[in-house]
Amino acid sequence: MGGDAGPAVTVPAARAMAGRADLILVGDPERIAEWLPGEVPGLRIHPAREALTPADSLADALRRKPDSSMRQALLRVAAGEADAVVSGGDTAALMGLARSLVTMVPGIERPAICKDLQGVSGPFWMLDLGANLDCTAEQLRQFALMGNTLARHVGGIAEPRVALLNIGTEAGKGPAVIGEAARLFEADPSIRYVGYVEGNVLFSNAADVVVADGFAGNIALKAIEGAAYMAGHLLHRWLEDLGPLEQAGLALARGKLRSLRHALNPQRYNGASFVGLSGVVVKSHGSADVEGFQSAIEEAILEVEGRIPGHLAAEFH
Amino acid sequence: MGGDAGPAVTVPAARAMAGRADLILVGDPERIAEWLPGEVPGLRIHPAREALTPADSLADALRRKPDSSMRQALLRVAAGEADAVVSGGDTAALMGLARSLVTMVPGIERPAICKDLQGVSGPFWMLDLGANLDCTAEQLRQFALMGNTLARHVGGIAEPRVALLNIGTEAGKGPAVIGEAARLFEADPSIRYVGYVEGNVLFSNAADVVVADGFAGNIALKAIEGAAYMAGHLLHRWLEDLGPLEQAGLALARGKLRSLRHALNPQRYNGASFVGLSGVVVKSHGSADVEGFQSAIEEAILEVEGRIPGHLAAEFH
Repeated sequence: MGGDAGPAVTVPAARAMAGRADLILVGDPERIAEWLPGEVPGLRIHPAREALTPADSLADALRRKPDSSMRQALLRVAAGEADAVVSGGDTAALMGLARSLVTMVPGIERPAICKDLQGVSGPFWMLDLGANLDCTAEQLRQFALMGNTLARHVGGIAEPRVALLNIGTEAGKGPAVIGEAARLFEADPSIRYVGYVEGNVLFSNAADVVVADGFAGNIALKAIEGAAYMAGHLLHRWLEDLGPLEQAGLALARGKLRSLRHALNPQRYNGASFVGLSGVVVKSHGSADVEGFQSAIEEAILEVEGRIPGHLAAEFH
Repeated sequence: MGGDAGPAVTVPAARAMAGRADLILVGDPERIAEWLPGEVPGLRIHPAREALTPADSLADALRRKPDSSMRQALLRVAAGEADAVVSGGDTAALMGLARSLVTMVPGIERPAICKDLQGVSGPFWMLDLGANLDCTAEQLRQFALMGNTLARHVGGIAEPRVALLNIGTEAGKGPAVIGEAARLFEADPSIRYVGYVEGNVLFSNAADVVVADGFAGNIALKAIEGAAYMAGHLLHRWLEDLGPLEQAGLALARGKLRSLRHALNPQRYNGASFVGLSGVVVKSHGSADVEGFQSAIEEAILEVEGRIPGHLAAEFH
């Protein structure tokens, strides 16, 4: 039921992904049925009579509305009926409910929001992207281990290079807590620490895992989204400005132009992981379209296949 | 003498800009002469025997090397012989020397680094981009007034809309100091405050002036640079992947393709202003090319023409 468009996006996305996994649609059966013409193998409905709305406070999400689709979906994971939840609902509500229902992996102090971004030569994982405003150095160290686990078991990178996001690369730059975290990273044999990175080299794959507190991580992620939007806008305006002859010429390169636009399309990268929980929880952007919500479902499947919660439990044992 | 390439970049850039302003090249006359074949009207050399190197500490820059090109250039402004300094040298050294030699506008607590970025419908000004790690709410208010002055007198925007960079748009989001700053902005009749903005809407021109502390501002700016690099890389790779027929087709749109690449070229946007000083000081990126250094010179000229230090002195009187 979540996201700006609700079932109009989530149900068609689930239909498209039904071959990849068994999917449970949690929500209002009638509204779901509008987008579901009859039975689809691998797809079933779990009714939930309520849904959270933007007007609901976090307290409402947590305490009132016991039958909200978000809560009911998370309960499926808590009950062992499902391996993962994908939601386009409110981030704070999803995080709050997930912490209370799916619970944390013992030993992990705080969950983090993590996303893989596509660099020049492959993906890299960045966390925390907004769950924790202030973090201790120890919490940042835990994020490094959590990012490591994703890069290893979703990304297949044997020894991920871990960096700290900072505003300079020299020792002594940035807030004191980043310097403290650097010392913890260096002392930890399970972290292959490569130093500070600045945002301008992220996409050159200077590191496989980039650790930040939730404030800096969120600022960086949103700025990247803004710049990607601007690049897409420039490309779009360029195409609109072409004259007939230029368009005819470009038509010859149409197939590959499509792949460029696809590469620049942020929907392809939709889906942020809540890491540190005993189950897989993926947050889809509220404005995701069908393709975007599919990306979020795919992310959840990859984390289940990579057994992320199990690896985290072993790591933090 | 500054920047990765020294006179090989700065001198040709100055030659190209010599018609726009009277330019003084401060540095080693012999190394400058290598790039200067004879007299150029509007261009003269002021000799400086030393130059700062990356090995120099901030203390070296400030106390030893009295004849460094950076110090000598700033002294030209302090002595009233020049209106502005443009340097590709170290940011911290330039800021430290500028504060001591060019001095602050009375009433301004801290200088800020500011840059105008190109959004969908025009430029916007973002500050601080890294001069001040931690800022008080009052210092953020001062940055708002400084950004206002640039947007008005360089950008020609009569009543700039001012926003605070944050990790959410609702009241209560983000660090306490941002909330405090929001209250100061609302109470100040010279600030047209429009609320919090997130990075993803910066390029939609949600505001004309975007205020942040130096940590958040630098994280955002560098992330934007990283994403712009990635977009340029995707475009480049797309062009390289085209087959002969596709290339022939695209050749028909070559002129406009050049303008797209130009729009995506970060060198066009090179040049960050040090605002709050009694003279114009513009920092060029160390890796700027000739076109990039020209942009930085152009920025300095616009700030001199807009009489930024004078307006700031009147504003903070």
